Amino acid sequence: MAELFKGKDVADSITQEFAARAEALRSKGIKPCLAMLRLGEDEADLSYERNAVKRCEKVGIEVAHFNLPLDADKDAVLNAVKEINNDKNIHACLMFRPFKDKELENEAGRLLDFKKDVDCMTPESLMSVFLGRGQSFAPCTAQACMEILDFYGVELTGKNVCVIGRSPVVGKPVSMLLQNKNATVTMCHTKTKDMAGIASKADVLVVAAGHANTVTKEFVNPNQLVIDVGINYVDGQLCGDVDFANVEPIVKAITPVPGGVGAVTTSVLAKHVILAAEAALDS
Amino acid sequence: MAELFKGKDVADSITQEFAARAEALRSKGIKPCLAMLRLGEDEADLSYERNAVKRCEKVGIEVAHFNLPLDADKDAVLNAVKEINNDKNIHACLMFRPFKDKELENEAGRLLDFKKDVDCMTPESLMSVFLGRGQSFAPCTAQACMEILDFYGVELTGKNVCVIGRSPVVGKPVSMLLQNKNATVTMCHTKTKDMAGIASKADVLVVAAGHANTVTKEFVNPNQLVIDVGINYVDGQLCGDVDFANVEPIVKAITPVPGGVGAVTTSVLAKHVILAAEAALDS
Repeated sequence: MAELFKGKDVADSITQEFAARAEALRSKGIKPCLAMLRLGEDEADLSYERNAVKRCEKVGIEVAHFNLPLDADKDAVLNAVKEINNDKNIHACLMFRPFKDKELENEAGRLLDFKKDVDCMTPESLMSVFLGRGQSFAPCTAQACMEILDFYGVELTGKNVCVIGRSPVVGKPVSMLLQNKNATVTMCHTKTKDMAGIASKADVLVVAAGHANTVTKEFVNPNQLVIDVGINYVDGQLCGDVDFANVEPIVKAITPVPGGVGAVTTSVLAKHVILAAEAALDS
Repeated sequence: MAELFKGKDVADSITQEFAARAEALRSKGIKPCLAMLRLGEDEADLSYERNAVKRCEKVGIEVAHFNLPLDADKDAVLNAVKEINNDKNIHACLMFRPFKDKELENEAGRLLDFKKDVDCMTPESLMSVFLGRGQSFAPCTAQACMEILDFYGVELTGKNVCVIGRSPVVGKPVSMLLQNKNATVTMCHTKTKDMAGIASKADVLVVAAGHANTVTKEFVNPNQLVIDVGINYVDGQLCGDVDFANVEPIVKAITPVPGGVGAVTTSVLAKHVILAAEAALDS
């Protein structure tokens, strides 16, 4: 039976540390503040927003809501970003992605001040993640995987890691974050041949495929640590990308879904907000 | 005995195609022009510059030289970049890297108009390579590897590729370019354990380690294609990162050094200049 890498324990630890640092900022007259820019009322966005707001309250972060209609025109969106950039009392910005208009999403990402970019939308942030410069913030979900591995004391240097999925918000950035920690990373995707063969040799398996039951028992081994990033609904039931019932008895450790990576994401967001506020104070 | 993937044949093919496209541009009154920004007189820079100028002549590209002293101050460098950005008759810019002052190099890279960025210095360009958006130009050497594989008809979809080296100008970008072509890429580096074991299972091996004899016969297999990006001098003799004498008899194909990747780089540069000039005409 596998050890469960519990997201709540990781999130609690991050929350505790950064609540203390938020308090320290307030004692210097700084109120950490996150802007949330949302277009429309997508249920998944609203659900994430509720969780993020709750986490921000726990840490001691104020939230400034920028809610626009789903069909808001370009000027309205870009003006909101400019307002966020120019407001010294706002330290960070989360935009709910994807936008309906991909081109506008890219333009908003380019416009955002990268120092306030806590979810890696700007070219500068992506470049830093890609080159391992650590001057900016990785996407919260990709970083959540790293926080879990760090919390449970997993040393990555020299480890063989298989990442399944190559999305711009999880698969690609987490591959680079893992490499930055000196892991040897193999990046698998839908065109990969013999994915089970490749995955089953890895020390750590990070699954961000976006489909339930992508990873079956043929993908794993008894010494393996499995990080399941998936969020799927099958018959109304929340599940990850891993066939948990058949994989969990085999591997050494695994993140459950729910209660794994998803439980850590908002605490990473809060951490990034505090780091951005601290950096603004120092600059 | 391995097939030799000859850089000259690849370079000739690119040169021929893009000389015709340069001619077409001139017939529309556009003279393709590349700015070269160089600080100091480093011998390797001068040697590359001579080769690049020759290639530009063959393709029909004018070169504007911006030569500054090695200790040029920040304003002088950034003003040169601004001049390049603002001059409509300049379509592209190559900066010789690394600068002595890394911070200034980064600042110059951020300032450069990414549409003129033919060697992937700007955050926008790096983001495009990382995300596979193809809106900008990859680093010339990384792209040269891709041109060789393309010229010799290597289909990459589903292939297992091992990349050795994780530099920002070769290893990392070429890993993403290969993934964008649907290869399954494993990124190896100095902290990788059992690199020979990993490399020897790959269909394609790209070596950008920066050290002679990194790849020995234990790293290869008889069906393997080897792309050697290395440029080293051992006892006054130019050689790659591969122990050619012992590896060549085993593998299916290999790029020689000299006469491999290095021979293609300037033709990729010229190609990028023409593409930038064409894009400027269309915009």
